[in-house]
Parts: sequence; C-alpha cells; structure tokens
Amino acid sequence: MSDWVLDQKLADDSVFVVDWPLSQLRLINDSRFPWLVLVPRVSDIEEIFQLSDEDQQQLLQESSQLAKILSASYEADKLNVAALGNVVRQLHVHHIVRYVDDCCYPSPVWDVGEALPYKDIELQQRVDELRTALTLVH
Amino acid sequence: MSDWVLDQKLADDSVFVVDWPLSQLRLINDSRFPWLVLVPRVSDIEEIFQLSDEDQQQLLQESSQLAKILSASYEADKLNVAALGNVVRQLHVHHIVRYVDDCCYPSPVWDVGEALPYKDIELQQRVDELRTALTLVH
Repeated sequence: MSDWVLDQKLADDSVFVVDWPLSQLRLINDSRFPWLVLVPRVSDIEEIFQLSDEDQQQLLQESSQLAKILSASYEADKLNVAALGNVVRQLHVHHIVRYVDDCCYPSPVWDVGEALPYKDIELQQRVDELRTALTLVH
Repeated sequence: MSDWVLDQKLADDSVFVVDWPLSQLRLINDSRFPWLVLVPRVSDIEEIFQLSDEDQQQLLQESSQLAKILSASYEADKLNVAALGNVVRQLHVHHIVRYVDDCCYPSPVWDVGEALPYKDIELQQRVDELRTALTLVH
C-alpha cells in the first residue's frame, strides 16, 4: 500500500477521520448528512472486483462495520452505500446517513442542491465524535 | 428463504433474469443503461449489515461476479454499484454499466431524465444474452 496517494478532489472535499486496516475513513464536508467515504489504500483500483479476494473481504467487513455504527450513532432511517466513481475514479465507497425528513429524501444525494460545509467548530466536533465511535472497533 | 416475496415496485420496474444462490438478478427496464439489481432472497432486510455474515459474503461474491461480467460483456467505462433503498426498502443492490458518453454521465442515474423502456424484442434479446452470460458461473 506504500505508493497509495489519495485523489486530490477527494482530499479537497473531505477530512481525515481514521485509518482502518484497509481503508481510510473520511468525512465529506457537507453538513446536510453524516456522510463518510471508505477509501481502500490500494493503488490503481477503480472497481471493487479489481481488489484481491482478501481485500474485498476486508472492505466488506469495514463497510458493514461503518454502516452499522453510523446507523446506530445517528439513528438513521436509511443508509445509502455506493461505489460510483464517475467523477473521482479512485475507488471509494460512500456511506450516507439518510432521514426521511432530510433536505433531499428520497432522492440520492449526488447532484442534488449544494453542499453545505460545516462551520469549523461543528466540523471538529463531528470528526471527534466519529473518531471516538470508529476507533473502538479496530 | 421460503417466505421471501419480491417488492411490488421492484417487480414492476424490472424483469427476471436468473436466480443465483442468494440473490435474484433482475434487469431494470430502462434501455439507457445495462442496469441490473441483485435482490437477496431473504425477508425483512433493508441494509447489507443486517444479513448474516455468511449471506454478506455470498452477496459480495455475487456482486463482484456480476460487476465483472457486466464490465467485460458491455465494455463499461465504469460500474456504479449501490444499495440505496430510499424508495424501495427491500434490500437490492444496483449494478449499472456507465459510459462516458451515455445520456447522463457523470451524474448518477437516479432522478435523472426519464426511463426509456426497451421495445419488446430488445428486452427479450437483452434478457437472453444476460441469461447466457450469467448462468455459466453458477
């Protein structure tokens, strides 16, 4: 994994939360939804099936752990989990907490309205609470 | 799995292709994209993490097989793989073949434009070719 470098657009749109064994977990800077991306630290991969079988297993495990924790911590009505990659090709898996009364439900979150960046203090608070919840499991 | 019943909206929007060990594979009736859904035949499940560990493994395997076959068969520029469920709560995982010159790229496909149903003969042809490609692996 040593030559893995985070895509620049992903870096610009999100902040570091924690590294799990395979993936880096990052918070998308859009306060409309608790929205994390799992980014496997493996170079030159665009699709889940391009990962080794072992890494696919690990990604599944990390994705399910993340979804479960987000669902419980934020009392989600629904999780949206997606690997799209139409804009940023580097493999990343979205995990978005949805509420039936959020801005955009039931539409998916992409290309809907404008991102609403966190205020600095809110961003730090959210990262802190996520880091606490997500560090316990690894 | 005996009491599993396909959601009515999913049934209306798609046609049966094949049953794999865990999931039913269905073609969404929208000719703008080769677009399949994997629907695990397990009752009362809305999130991947609610499946048993064994079923999660099987879903991963089926998802990766499907994505790999679709990618190769349709020479995809990108696969979009997503478990959303905001409208239909029954767990289903979208697998959509995207091209950089399709109608809507790089936008996700949901809530973009109108579905363009297949003509009857095209639908049968697509189901036949998919059934051939997807039956070989199980």
